[in-house]
Amino acid sequence: MPTAAGDPSEEGRLIAEIETLWEGRSNSGLILAGGDDCAIVQPPADGVELLLATDQIVEGRHFVPDKHPPSALGRKALARSLSDIAAMGGRPLYFLQALCLPQWATGDWHRAFQRGMRELASNAGLAGLALAGGDISGGDSFVASLTVVGCVEQGTAMRRSGARPGDRVYLSGSVGGSAMGLELLLGEAASDLDHPAIRRHCEPLPQLELGRALRSLPASAAIDLSDGLATDANRLAAASGAAILLDSSSVPLFAGARIENAVRSGEEYELLFTLPPGSDPPQGFATTEVGRVDFGTGVWLDTGLGRSRLGPEGFSHF
Amino acid sequence: MPTAAGDPSEEGRLIAEIETLWEGRSNSGLILAGGDDCAIVQPPADGVELLLATDQIVEGRHFVPDKHPPSALGRKALARSLSDIAAMGGRPLYFLQALCLPQWATGDWHRAFQRGMRELASNAGLAGLALAGGDISGGDSFVASLTVVGCVEQGTAMRRSGARPGDRVYLSGSVGGSAMGLELLLGEAASDLDHPAIRRHCEPLPQLELGRALRSLPASAAIDLSDGLATDANRLAAASGAAILLDSSSVPLFAGARIENAVRSGEEYELLFTLPPGSDPPQGFATTEVGRVDFGTGVWLDTGLGRSRLGPEGFSHF
Repeated sequence: MPTAAGDPSEEGRLIAEIETLWEGRSNSGLILAGGDDCAIVQPPADGVELLLATDQIVEGRHFVPDKHPPSALGRKALARSLSDIAAMGGRPLYFLQALCLPQWATGDWHRAFQRGMRELASNAGLAGLALAGGDISGGDSFVASLTVVGCVEQGTAMRRSGARPGDRVYLSGSVGGSAMGLELLLGEAASDLDHPAIRRHCEPLPQLELGRALRSLPASAAIDLSDGLATDANRLAAASGAAILLDSSSVPLFAGARIENAVRSGEEYELLFTLPPGSDPPQGFATTEVGRVDFGTGVWLDTGLGRSRLGPEGFSHF
Repeated sequence: MPTAAGDPSEEGRLIAEIETLWEGRSNSGLILAGGDDCAIVQPPADGVELLLATDQIVEGRHFVPDKHPPSALGRKALARSLSDIAAMGGRPLYFLQALCLPQWATGDWHRAFQRGMRELASNAGLAGLALAGGDISGGDSFVASLTVVGCVEQGTAMRRSGARPGDRVYLSGSVGGSAMGLELLLGEAASDLDHPAIRRHCEPLPQLELGRALRSLPASAAIDLSDGLATDANRLAAASGAAILLDSSSVPLFAGARIENAVRSGEEYELLFTLPPGSDPPQGFATTEVGRVDFGTGVWLDTGLGRSRLGPEGFSHF
């Protein structure tokens, strides 16, 4: 029985809308979703571990209400959380959404936001992902917090900490498109939502299948590019206690992007991963060798004219 | 290795603070917490189901920054989520926190907020609850979204929907104190934080042990009073497809509270539950019989002078 039954409040109406929209996405392990204090789910089979991740989309930080279409935001919100599961090679099972909605984010806007999430969840790689619950509140500023529960075979989750000197470094897809799309979207002129860079920014795809393929190789380490190559490569290097040397000319750039912007481009949701010697990247995915792991610390970029340190915030000098 | 390692940003500093504060609260099933894209947890033993719940504390809706002490808010935020686990008779295992923090909510304020949560978690009934991850963002307005993962023996979770005509209705503790405390706290005068009603509002205790005792009876239905007796009794009645008749003079009131305010007093985190005929409430807990379940719909209050309908928003006429 839906939570919304007999609840005439604004919150009740919004919950009823969400429940209708997400009906029919079943997961055989979901025993009770909505309508009670908690969702009840069956734990996965023996020999499987659970993955937990939570992420936010915050008004004014991750988006600008007048510029970002609500469906794109819904997509971004869910992609952001699923990308964490992808980075560890897991399979997403359930998600919960906590929404703080100003008045402008209700009604049509809210329906479009939910539809964006729903569209992403319709992706073939996401069969079995089900909405397990949530919380809705009014508020002065929009915040969506999504929590995802996933699973992975015991002891096989990829971590950031496994890169070793001698490993090669790879990147999926290309980088730079999301920052370029964001700049176009926030610009003075009305945006062409079909522009490739804007689509790149608004329609991210978490690399779940690649993540699972990397886990079975196995890759030695992986991280998703949520905050940009510079920041996330530094996280992987720090967690692994090693240095990462990137070859500037090898980094695959989105059409029209420049390397100095591309390394700071967040919300790419590509995977940066390392492979031990003798291991090749999985077939059927767009991946590029971009460097190697070495002794030392930090991330270094070889520009052909010398080596520059790439800090978490991007280049200090370029 | 902590996420914060090598991360000099404000976010990195806050995460390092949180990790230090929550260190030492272990849960044997927590394989990896923080420092990677997801937390990794061992699923509970065979024959155990998982409970999932998410709840928010929103600035201006659930609290007023100038009035509510930050430690009280931390406590409220965690109590709110744990109370959902209590209502189903479960045991909390892990929680994740997504925090949207304006500048004023960093530094000392944020440390006190975390300490409030940590104090609640130190409660004897919460051994084993561990922080499994989170997300921090800046923002214009404070929002804390907490997600709790709990567990319960297969098929035994109490639901809102199990009340049947003939069952008796019980309430734990008393109601009305939280609303009274909130009114005092928001009043013109500086608040005496030791006032019993203010302490009641600021130091809620989720009824986890009572919840587990009720589950083993078993109780036929249960719900926690997060939004007030009027709202939550209507939710239980609607989910069960039955009417609830409350005896006004039996409802246990916090010292000084009046029934018409007490039924609208949210954030009480007491349990409203129903027992089948022949079943008595568990020993060792403060519980009061407050009415019975009947055929029909809605919630009705017998005032001694007649019967009034108690809508989700409280009394339309009193």
